Amino acid sequence: MKILVVGAAGKIGRAVVAELGQRHEIVRAGRSAGDVRLDFSGRASLAAGLERVGRIDAVVSTAGDLAFAPLQALTEADFEVGLRGKLMGQVQLAVQAIPYLADGGSITLTSGVLTDEPIAQGSIATMVNAGIEGFVRAAAIELPRGIRINAVSPGLIEESVDEAAGFFPGFEPVSSRRVALAFSRSIEGHRTGQVYKVV
Amino acid sequence: MKILVVGAAGKIGRAVVAELGQRHEIVRAGRSAGDVRLDFSGRASLAAGLERVGRIDAVVSTAGDLAFAPLQALTEADFEVGLRGKLMGQVQLAVQAIPYLADGGSITLTSGVLTDEPIAQGSIATMVNAGIEGFVRAAAIELPRGIRINAVSPGLIEESVDEAAGFFPGFEPVSSRRVALAFSRSIEGHRTGQVYKVV
Repeated sequence: MKILVVGAAGKIGRAVVAELGQRHEIVRAGRSAGDVRLDFSGRASLAAGLERVGRIDAVVSTAGDLAFAPLQALTEADFEVGLRGKLMGQVQLAVQAIPYLADGGSITLTSGVLTDEPIAQGSIATMVNAGIEGFVRAAAIELPRGIRINAVSPGLIEESVDEAAGFFPGFEPVSSRRVALAFSRSIEGHRTGQVYKVV
Repeated sequence: MKILVVGAAGKIGRAVVAELGQRHEIVRAGRSAGDVRLDFSGRASLAAGLERVGRIDAVVSTAGDLAFAPLQALTEADFEVGLRGKLMGQVQLAVQAIPYLADGGSITLTSGVLTDEPIAQGSIATMVNAGIEGFVRAAAIELPRGIRINAVSPGLIEESVDEAAGFFPGFEPVSSRRVALAFSRSIEGHRTGQVYKVV
């Protein structure tokens, strides 16, 4: 398979490339590194990136920005970071990738454990991740030509413990290798409309 | 209790006013009718409306616009209708209402059955409704002074069957009176972070 990985230079992206690169052709994409430059700032960047990559069998997004702040201190700018940088970035990638995907191809997006287990200062993350999972459930029933869509919901990954553990009390860290296996299940498996939780 | 109902002139809003108005003071708000004019077009309208209403014991939103279209035909404008007109409108109402709410007060937002049961052309609705429910789960753990937040998720309401039934095959219609009871459970009950499904 030819697999486009958006966010390939990130912690999870690198693990996905390591896992799937063993048996598939990987096209790395990112906003500042990769075979193709592509970011979530707008449809134009997505369209240009997809056009350069051409026909693909799978598209993966491990990219997404979020702002964390106390509920009563949330600004419109904080919301915009999550709505543009994680929710709509991934949703637009999914919609725009459809014409480039081969019959039976797949789309795999990234949500996160905060969908189900909110933390203090994480209300935008829970809102955005839940929105991604909702989109995946709905898009699954409309995709043409046997194209599938799933989300992977990673827990707190081990590589982020040092910077983030104080915000995730008692969350058991997961390895990015385990998270990458969930992407394999989505891409190399046959289900659609699923959320693969790695906790 | 003094209860602010945003969207009071809508099908569900009228039922909520009828149910809760039997034993509480209702302030009706809406974009084109009501005791107070208030819409989801921006923070300024919300702030002005809340300031006119003053101290409240509960705020309810039954308002929200959504666009429906086939997955591959969705435009940025379609997404904006849902993101601004239902998701962020309700979320900003909730956040901005906090200082006006009495200790132990409550916020009740509206999601919908499409969160769990996607239909063709409904991917934005499922995404937006899931985001609202996520926000409710997360905000519940951060609200101060015993303030609670819940969502009501109505099914296809009987009053909408004529215009919408073709899009909701086999969905059992629910009466707006039953939906109003779910708002009563949220406002007059004591739980928080819940989604009351009326299907």
